[in-house]
Amino acid sequence: MSLSTPPAVVTAGVTLFEETLARQAVDVAAVRWQPPVGDPAALAAVMGDARRVAANEQALAAMLGAQAHLVDVRPASEVLGLEPRTFLHAGPPVEWERASGPMRGALIGALLFEGIASTPEEATRVLESGGVSWEPCHGRGAVGPMAGVVSPSMWVFCLRDESTGNESWCSLNEGLGKVLRYGAYDDSVIDRLRWMTDVLGPLLQHAVRAGDPVDVRAIVAQMIQMGDEGHNRNRAGTLMFLREVLPAMIDSGFPTSDVAQAVRFVSGNDHFFLNLVMPACKLQTLAAADLPGSTVVTVMARNGTDFGIQTSGTGDTWFTAPAHTPEGLFLGSYGPEDANPDIGDSAITETAGIGGLAMATAPAIVRFVGGSVPDALATTQRMYDITVGENPAFAIPILEFRGTPTGIDVTSVVRSGVLPQINTGMAGRVAGTGQVGAGLVTPPMACFTQALDALAARTAPPGRGVAG
Amino acid sequence: MSLSTPPAVVTAGVTLFEETLARQAVDVAAVRWQPPVGDPAALAAVMGDARRVAANEQALAAMLGAQAHLVDVRPASEVLGLEPRTFLHAGPPVEWERASGPMRGALIGALLFEGIASTPEEATRVLESGGVSWEPCHGRGAVGPMAGVVSPSMWVFCLRDESTGNESWCSLNEGLGKVLRYGAYDDSVIDRLRWMTDVLGPLLQHAVRAGDPVDVRAIVAQMIQMGDEGHNRNRAGTLMFLREVLPAMIDSGFPTSDVAQAVRFVSGNDHFFLNLVMPACKLQTLAAADLPGSTVVTVMARNGTDFGIQTSGTGDTWFTAPAHTPEGLFLGSYGPEDANPDIGDSAITETAGIGGLAMATAPAIVRFVGGSVPDALATTQRMYDITVGENPAFAIPILEFRGTPTGIDVTSVVRSGVLPQINTGMAGRVAGTGQVGAGLVTPPMACFTQALDALAARTAPPGRGVAG
Repeated sequence: MSLSTPPAVVTAGVTLFEETLARQAVDVAAVRWQPPVGDPAALAAVMGDARRVAANEQALAAMLGAQAHLVDVRPASEVLGLEPRTFLHAGPPVEWERASGPMRGALIGALLFEGIASTPEEATRVLESGGVSWEPCHGRGAVGPMAGVVSPSMWVFCLRDESTGNESWCSLNEGLGKVLRYGAYDDSVIDRLRWMTDVLGPLLQHAVRAGDPVDVRAIVAQMIQMGDEGHNRNRAGTLMFLREVLPAMIDSGFPTSDVAQAVRFVSGNDHFFLNLVMPACKLQTLAAADLPGSTVVTVMARNGTDFGIQTSGTGDTWFTAPAHTPEGLFLGSYGPEDANPDIGDSAITETAGIGGLAMATAPAIVRFVGGSVPDALATTQRMYDITVGENPAFAIPILEFRGTPTGIDVTSVVRSGVLPQINTGMAGRVAGTGQVGAGLVTPPMACFTQALDALAARTAPPGRGVAG
Repeated sequence: MSLSTPPAVVTAGVTLFEETLARQAVDVAAVRWQPPVGDPAALAAVMGDARRVAANEQALAAMLGAQAHLVDVRPASEVLGLEPRTFLHAGPPVEWERASGPMRGALIGALLFEGIASTPEEATRVLESGGVSWEPCHGRGAVGPMAGVVSPSMWVFCLRDESTGNESWCSLNEGLGKVLRYGAYDDSVIDRLRWMTDVLGPLLQHAVRAGDPVDVRAIVAQMIQMGDEGHNRNRAGTLMFLREVLPAMIDSGFPTSDVAQAVRFVSGNDHFFLNLVMPACKLQTLAAADLPGSTVVTVMARNGTDFGIQTSGTGDTWFTAPAHTPEGLFLGSYGPEDANPDIGDSAITETAGIGGLAMATAPAIVRFVGGSVPDALATTQRMYDITVGENPAFAIPILEFRGTPTGIDVTSVVRSGVLPQINTGMAGRVAGTGQVGAGLVTPPMACFTQALDALAARTAPPGRGVAG
């Protein structure tokens, strides 16, 4: 028996067959596939959960529907219920013994700033002795970039989602280099924080209260069309935010020298708007939280030691694993050996579908975090494979206005082996250093396999119906 | 005799052979080619000009080397030598009888603004009777968007190229819709011009004089990385310009209500920075002017009736032909029948290699001027075929940081038949209307064939040496 046409060969997964046939000059159509990561039984259970599809659709709709208006600027003590000697920090919980250099440095700085200690050595003793306490920002609905340390006297942006009534908060951005959030705590850091508390916070409060609430989501939508991806490029966003609050700042009656200094400070820091993007993203994922059966990721956050995620279907349970160290570009003479593992709540941007997931819209970012322009485009394309939908409000012009990939699905991550792409600043490993660079990083897969197991343990038996 | 391999067929130009062979299932490699436009003898003469290559290299180097600092803001009468009753306008010269509706409307408005007439009818009588005079902006080294009418009392940006000592000037941008430059002249237009003269001009003058000269070229370089192409998208540029002058505006001692109003005015108009991009581009092309043997285009400008170009090798001679009418998107209920032919000096942006030539960096612009995202990318790629080089200072991220196509070459245009791509605002055909839309347009080929003839008439005989 003979074939009337040449045989068509399709291979899947393992490349051995494909390569062998190709060496024999056989045309091969290779289908990329790899075995799922994690426990097959858990995956089967979660995939078979009758509530999953509808719950994930509901999660996506909630993320797309969330609003984010800047409604106030206030001291953390007033809005976050922060008692004296209580601090917030980025990522999942971490005790002092396991805390990274930048996390320790930021806590030391916060104690100096609050006047609890007068030297770094004294601050360290207090921190070691348990004389103060710290807990994750996410536990109170807040987010903090890098170490993410918030102390009671620091001022925070207050954002509100009118569609749910949810609120979120984030500190004011200090700029780059030697700053508290990167673990620096010298006098220049503490002096800057004092000025932010004495001048910048009250001035921004006045401007925000004097005008209409600033529509942060609308600015994010515009910045996505202006080469910002919202995590490590916030240039256009910062300028658009400044435009919104400027007239009221000028009309504030504050001394013009203070106003001019505040304008220089904000406009001189391309990352200022990050601290508004982050709580806006938190409001998106908060809207999608706590939907039984949903496998959508609602938190990705790092404390410099561990990476932690939360999913919609598992509430506020953390699934943690040791954080990877980013690879990227370094400032000055710093190198890979100076970099601390991944740190910060800023991966809330990726959780909401921007940042690393939207790198296609920000090809210029490769000059800041490394990689190539084709990589940036390919990264966003790849992220559509592990997300439940797209956000038409955040349209990427170069992809012919396709919406950003939104709603990371635990099952898609473990089935494909594709991890969410995060781009990030890099903190110095040693407390007190500050920023050493910026780069690219992924979460540990173990966070997702643990989440899968927990989702499997909560699946509804067949016939028990869909999410309410 | 037989062939040992299948024949390889290459066709060039006319598609008849290609199509016939393809129908016979023959593999054909088609080379796109079309006969040059214009007089073959003229083209041969210009291509054979021994000075050409070196002169064009010199022109490119001059364009790339030009600086552009905003050094002052002053009334046009003080810096442009504008006598009372003298006006500047966009494009090549045009008499009243042939002037388009928007050009007439803008001149009428300018007479009202200067108090030469108190009604549009009276202004029209003065303009018809020769009681005032008007001449091209380019003749005095200035540029004006759309009708480009500058009257003695209007304030202008003063830009300087430190590398050559050249200067250029442009009016302040009024915003969109019913504005003088689009041919509107009602009370709101005149009132706005008065406020710009009484408040905005003096305040900007104070701010510019108080600070270091604003590096306009550096802002253009940044905006190219932020989705602006510098002609019809100047969003990021406007915000970055505002950032530069803001602190000095706030510290100016002017009433804070005036400062706040000026900030609202500037930041509320995404096109404000166009009037700084244009003179910066003029300084680029001015640096490349008057090089014997150079076939590089130094001016493309339209008066609403005629399109005119100038080339480096032919000095300030205009080569004109009737302007095309743009095709694009319309505001409100306006349609193609409302559009005036192409108008304005703003094609100086394309002449310098940005605007329509750099649309690849601004895919979002297709929502303003029409076309598709792939078109925007293909347009910039096509423009490399008719330009003498690339501008590394204006790097397009999505093209892996390739520089903008710079220095349109008359010989490349007539040899390829490819015309420079311009994107542009569209003025209403009827005087007094204002803006009706925005779109895409090309210059008439006749401008280039005329320029070619003039270049041919000036070629150096062989052996007469290269450009000095």
